[in-house]
Amino acid sequence: MNSEPAVERVRRQVCALHAELVRYGLVAWTAGNVSGRVPGADLFVIKPSGVSYDDLTPESIVVCDLDGHLVDGVHTPSSDTAAHAYVYRHMPDVGGVVHTHSTYASAWAARAEPIPCVLTAMADEFGGEIPVGPFALIGDDSIGRGIVTTLEAHNSPAVLMQNHGVFTIGEDARSAVKAAVMCEDVARTVHVARQLGEPIPIPDSDVAKLHDRYQNVYGQG
Amino acid sequence: MNSEPAVERVRRQVCALHAELVRYGLVAWTAGNVSGRVPGADLFVIKPSGVSYDDLTPESIVVCDLDGHLVDGVHTPSSDTAAHAYVYRHMPDVGGVVHTHSTYASAWAARAEPIPCVLTAMADEFGGEIPVGPFALIGDDSIGRGIVTTLEAHNSPAVLMQNHGVFTIGEDARSAVKAAVMCEDVARTVHVARQLGEPIPIPDSDVAKLHDRYQNVYGQG
Amino acid sequence: MNSEPAVERVRRQVCALHAELVRYGLVAWTAGNVSGRVPGADLFVIKPSGVSYDDLTPESIVVCDLDGHLVDGVHTPSSDTAAHAYVYRHMPDVGGVVHTHSTYASAWAARAEPIPCVLTAMADEFGGEIPVGPFALIGDDSIGRGIVTTLEAHNSPAVLMQNHGVFTIGEDARSAVKAAVMCEDVARTVHVARQLGEPIPIPDSDVAKLHDRYQNVYGQG
Amino acid sequence: MNSEPAVERVRRQVCALHAELVRYGLVAWTAGNVSGRVPGADLFVIKPSGVSYDDLTPESIVVCDLDGHLVDGVHTPSSDTAAHAYVYRHMPDVGGVVHTHSTYASAWAARAEPIPCVLTAMADEFGGEIPVGPFALIGDDSIGRGIVTTLEAHNSPAVLMQNHGVFTIGEDARSAVKAAVMCEDVARTVHVARQLGEPIPIPDSDVAKLHDRYQNVYGQG
Repeated sequence: MNSEPAVERVRRQVCALHAELVRYGLVAWTAGNVSGRVPGADLFVIKPSGVSYDDLTPESIVVCDLDGHLVDGVHTPSSDTAAHAYVYRHMPDVGGVVHTHSTYASAWAARAEPIPCVLTAMADEFGGEIPVGPFALIGDDSIGRGIVTTLEAHNSPAVLMQNHGVFTIGEDARSAVKAAVMCEDVARTVHVARQLGEPIPIPDSDVAKLHDRYQNVYGQG
Repeated sequence: MNSEPAVERVRRQVCALHAELVRYGLVAWTAGNVSGRVPGADLFVIKPSGVSYDDLTPESIVVCDLDGHLVDGVHTPSSDTAAHAYVYRHMPDVGGVVHTHSTYASAWAARAEPIPCVLTAMADEFGGEIPVGPFALIGDDSIGRGIVTTLEAHNSPAVLMQNHGVFTIGEDARSAVKAAVMCEDVARTVHVARQLGEPIPIPDSDVAKLHDRYQNVYGQG
Repeated sequence: MNSEPAVERVRRQVCALHAELVRYGLVAWTAGNVSGRVPGADLFVIKPSGVSYDDLTPESIVVCDLDGHLVDGVHTPSSDTAAHAYVYRHMPDVGGVVHTHSTYASAWAARAEPIPCVLTAMADEFGGEIPVGPFALIGDDSIGRGIVTTLEAHNSPAVLMQNHGVFTIGEDARSAVKAAVMCEDVARTVHVARQLGEPIPIPDSDVAKLHDRYQNVYGQG
Repeated sequence: MNSEPAVERVRRQVCALHAELVRYGLVAWTAGNVSGRVPGADLFVIKPSGVSYDDLTPESIVVCDLDGHLVDGVHTPSSDTAAHAYVYRHMPDVGGVVHTHSTYASAWAARAEPIPCVLTAMADEFGGEIPVGPFALIGDDSIGRGIVTTLEAHNSPAVLMQNHGVFTIGEDARSAVKAAVMCEDVARTVHVARQLGEPIPIPDSDVAKLHDRYQNVYGQG
C-alpha cells in the first residue's frame, strides 16, 4: 500500500482546519495546533512550530512518525509534537488531536476546575464533565501521559491541562477541531452562567441518554 | 394553488437567514437552526442535521410536513425538527422558528432564570421578561410542548429552555431570526448590568406602552 | 446659497458612518442610528426606521427639518428622530448625533450609574465621568430634553440614558461616531476593571490637563 | 552605509503591523501605535497622530530621530512619540515598541494590579508576572521613564502603565506586536479565571524553565 496520497490528503485537511481555530477565536498569534493521523501508516501530520496561520500551506505541514520524529517537511514540528505523538501511540482509535489555549477553557484550567455538565449540548458532545489533567512541563512524555490517563477515565473528547490549555481528540482531525470549538463554547457559557449563580445540574441518567442519542443519531448518518 | 414556488422561495430565505446566526455569533459549528412555514401549504422547511453553515444551499434545506416527516430533500432534517413541527401545529400564526445555544441566553437558561425587563429595547421587542421553559429531553414532543405552553403565557417571542438554549418565533423566518438576535443582545446586556449591581426595573405600565408603540409604529409600516 | 450639494454630501457621510457602528459591534439588527446637520441649512439627515445596515444607501437616508419632520426621502425617519431634532434645535454647535444600545454603555445605563473617569483615554475624550440622563419614554421631547440637560452640565460628549442606551454628540457626524466608539470602549474597560476590584481614581486636576491637551494638540491639527 | 532602503522597509513593516492590532481587537478608532527602529541609523518610524488604520500607508508613517523629532514625513507623529523615543534611547537592544489600550490589559492597569503568572503560555512569553508602571502624564519623559524603569526590573516585554494602557517591546516591531497580542490574551484569560476563584500559581522554578525553553527552542530557530 502506497501511503503518499493519504499523507497529502491529511496535510491538506490539517492545513485547512487551522483556519477553523482562527475563525472561532481559539488561538492568538501561533498558539494552537491541529494534527491528523495518516490512515494506513504509522505517521501523523502536524503544524510547524511558530509559523503564522496565514502562512500555512499543505506543504508546510510536517510529517512525523509516532515517536514524534520528523519524517518529511522543511520546518521544525510544533513544540507540542511529543504530546500529540504520545496520544497517537496510546489511543489507536484517535485520528486527530487539537491543542489550544482558548480563553474560557484555559481559565477553568488555570483553576484546575472541571466544567460541570449543565447544558444539553455538553451532554451531547462530552457525555459529562470536561475533566482536568495534571500540571506537566513540556519536554518529555508528561503532558501526553496526563492527556491519555485523563481521557481514558471520561467520556469527554476534551481535557483541560492544569495552568495550560485544552487538548481534544477525535476519530479524525475534523472531529477533534469540532470538540475544541464546542469545548470553548460550553466553557464560556457555563462560566457566564456561574457568574450570576449556580447552574442547575442535569441528572446523570439524562446526560447518558443525551450522549447516547447524539453519538448515534445526530448528523447525516 | 401550486405550492412549489412558495417552497423554493422559503428555502432560499431560510438558507440565507442561517448566515445571520453566524454573523451575530449565535452559533458554534452546526448548533442552531432556522425553519420557515410554507405559505398556503401544511409544510415547513428546515436546516439539515449536522451540515455546516458554509455548505448550506437552498437545495440542501429540507421540506417537512407538520408532523416533522421529510417530504422533500436529500438530507436528514435537523434533530430539532420535532420541536419546530410542534410549534407550527399549535401556533397557526407562527411563520418562522429559530433555535440556538447562544451564549448569554443559554447561561440564563442554565440557571432557569428569566431575563428581567430592564431595557427599553427589551420592552419594545419582548413586552416584558424573557421566560424560562421546562427541562425536556429530545426525542418526543416534550420540547415543543414546553415552548408552546411558555410562549402562550407571555408577550415574548423568545423562550429560554432550561439547561438547553433559546427558541424564538415570528410571523416569518426573518422575524424569528430578529428575535433570536435581540434575545442574545439583551441577555448579554442585562447579564453585564447585573454583574456590578441591580438594574433599575421599568414600571409595567411603561413596558406596556413601549411594547405597544414598537409593535405598531416602528419600521417602514 | 444652494444647500443641495451639502445635503447630498452629508447623506453620503452619514450612510457610510453607519458601517462604523457595525464594525465596532455597537448595534444589533437595526438598533442604532447616526444623524448629521446640513451646513448652511436648518436641516439634518438621519437613518430611516427599521432598515438594515446592509441596505442603507445615501438615497435611503432621509432629510428632516429641525422639528424632525420629513423634508426629503422615501422612507419613514428613525423612531429616534425627535430626540436628534431636539439636540440640533438646542445645541447649535452640534453637527452630529449618534444613538446606540451598545452592550457595556447600556449596562451602566440599566443601573443608572455614571462611568467613573479612571482611564487616561477617558480623560482625553470625555473630560471626566460619562453621566446618566433620566428615564424617558419615546414619543415626545422627554428624551431630547434629558440628553441636552445632562450634556450641558458635563464635558462629556456622551450621555447614558437610564434603562435605554447612549447618545453622543460631535462637531460633525464623524466626531459623534468616534465618541460612541470610545464610549463603549471605556464602558467595557472600566466594567472589566471593576469586576475584580476598585480602579484607582485619576485626580481631577490631571483629568483636566489630559482633556485640555487632547482637545487642543491631538491629531493632524 | 545608506540608511534609506532600511527606512522604507521598516515603514512598510510598521504600516502592515498596525493591521494586526486591528485584527486582534487591541485598538478602537486610532488609539494604539507601533514603532520600529531603523537598523544602522539613529532613527525610528511611528504611526502619525489621529490617522485611522484604514488610511495608513507606508508613506504616511513618519520618521523621527531618537529625541522624537520629525525627520521625514508629512504628518504629525503620534502623541506617544516621546515615550517610544525614550525607550529607544535607553534600551539599545529594543527594535520595536507597541502601545495599546487593549481592554483586559488596561483593566488590570486601572487597578494598578500586575497579572500573576498562572499560565504556561505566560511563563513562555513573559517569564513571570506582567508588571505595573507608574501613573504618568503625557507631555514629558515621565511615561518613557516609567516604562524603562519597570521593564528593566522584569523579564516581561510588556508593562501595564497605571490608569493608561500597555507598552510592549521586542527585538523588532513584529516581536513587540506579538507581545501586545499575547499580553491581551493572557490578561483576558487570567481575568476570566479570577472571576470564579483563585488560579493555581506556577512555581517560580517551573516558570523559569518554561521561559528559558521558549526563548531558546520555540519556532523555526
